[in-house]
Amino acid sequence: MSVLVVGSIAFDTVETPHGRREEMLGGSATHFACAARYFTQVRVVAVVGTDFPSGGIEFFNSRGVDVEGVQVREGKTFRWEAVYHGDMAQARTLATHLNVFKDFAPTIPDSYRDSPFVFLANIDPDLQADVLRQVKKPILVAADTMNHWIADKRESVRKLLGAADVAILNDAEAKMLTDEHNLAPAAEKIRSYGTKYVVVKKGEHGAMVFGEGLRFALPGFPLDDVRDPTGAGDTFAGGFMGRIAQLGDGIVQRTGVRSGGDGEFDRGGD
Amino acid sequence: MSVLVVGSIAFDTVETPHGRREEMLGGSATHFACAARYFTQVRVVAVVGTDFPSGGIEFFNSRGVDVEGVQVREGKTFRWEAVYHGDMAQARTLATHLNVFKDFAPTIPDSYRDSPFVFLANIDPDLQADVLRQVKKPILVAADTMNHWIADKRESVRKLLGAADVAILNDAEAKMLTDEHNLAPAAEKIRSYGTKYVVVKKGEHGAMVFGEGLRFALPGFPLDDVRDPTGAGDTFAGGFMGRIAQLGDGIVQRTGVRSGGDGEFDRGGD
Repeated sequence: MSVLVVGSIAFDTVETPHGRREEMLGGSATHFACAARYFTQVRVVAVVGTDFPSGGIEFFNSRGVDVEGVQVREGKTFRWEAVYHGDMAQARTLATHLNVFKDFAPTIPDSYRDSPFVFLANIDPDLQADVLRQVKKPILVAADTMNHWIADKRESVRKLLGAADVAILNDAEAKMLTDEHNLAPAAEKIRSYGTKYVVVKKGEHGAMVFGEGLRFALPGFPLDDVRDPTGAGDTFAGGFMGRIAQLGDGIVQRTGVRSGGDGEFDRGGD
Repeated sequence: MSVLVVGSIAFDTVETPHGRREEMLGGSATHFACAARYFTQVRVVAVVGTDFPSGGIEFFNSRGVDVEGVQVREGKTFRWEAVYHGDMAQARTLATHLNVFKDFAPTIPDSYRDSPFVFLANIDPDLQADVLRQVKKPILVAADTMNHWIADKRESVRKLLGAADVAILNDAEAKMLTDEHNLAPAAEKIRSYGTKYVVVKKGEHGAMVFGEGLRFALPGFPLDDVRDPTGAGDTFAGGFMGRIAQLGDGIVQRTGVRSGGDGEFDRGGD
């Protein structure tokens, strides 16, 4: 079954101890889509500027990613520039040019509204909520966020994650969102917002999932050579959601998500 | 089969977000012994001052830990004072009073020299080497170290770990010792010193073991309530070595350690 991702398409300029690359195709939707596409059909809603090259669209087409939902707006595509030092655990952002992404108002094409699986990448939580209002009874919704939104719109983030079936965020964000120093109580607090499962990404240390009566951890696969960690979290989310979508609604029924509550965002659809 | 630990016995004064405790019985040998004792017989070589209370010895006796090898020297017992903030991932040392530990020269009692399993806790690597010269053909030797010794005696640390069958150290130490930013190549470099297995402790993130054709990782068990992480690494090492010693030399033969090379420290004994 297909998965819809709503997020960013960007050009990233990144320097690591291994070198520097300019204007690489990136953004949360790109990384998510490429990973999820190993498992299932992927639909993308994002925005690019009129400078976005045809080669970018061809890249998605060549992978069979559906980009009908990618809007083209007058202006430049989102740019991000960062440098990683040492173990590359933390990116230091040098420049963020939102450009056309600044006024992104995701519109879900009619043909996408019945998407059974939905991933809300880390955009403004109020826009994530808008997406939920536009889709029709998805089987499973997962949502990510980031420190920026937690700092600026904490209550919106909490409501949005509470309305999702699965919250996918990293350990620092989970602690920041809940004012907890310890991961297990942080995850339980996020579950108390209403989400059934909390997936915590821990970078090279792997990931954990928390649910009712469930705590499961997997270490990261140890790589000999790490070149650029940009997009690793969205890539992980893409693999996670892609595989679940591939398995279809059977896996979801067995794990008990989507038990019928619609909640704040009227997710039952029109 | 019994395990010998050579390390410190100390009194720790520790403050965490949960409170402050003064003069708690601590030190690497103490934490190691208490954990290993769940699995097997434990022999301790360490030093305490004439101020060490009879209650301390009774503590070990009550757990059935053999403290015949604990020397009593004129002076005060090792004291350490530290504070942990936030997620308690890092201790900030406020005071270190080595006291009698400053001139600790471990002497292995005759009755301990045939100990089949040996753990060298993080003391001066030259003293760790002295211990290796005093024991007779142990089945398996594991050694820990710490940042202090890596900074001051890097070559001695490398030789000592190379002479052990298992190096047990934390991720920051592994990277520091090898000048590597990435854990997998750091561990492989430590193996190149001569040690067969490298166990990397990653705090709350669990542990990994690297060997010939072997990379195995386990996440940490997620705790809801962490009060004081002091001694966690030595406790882990105690459980690790205690369980191996309990299983005896069969497990060691199957995993191929102690294949017969004696090396630098004439570990074949006298």
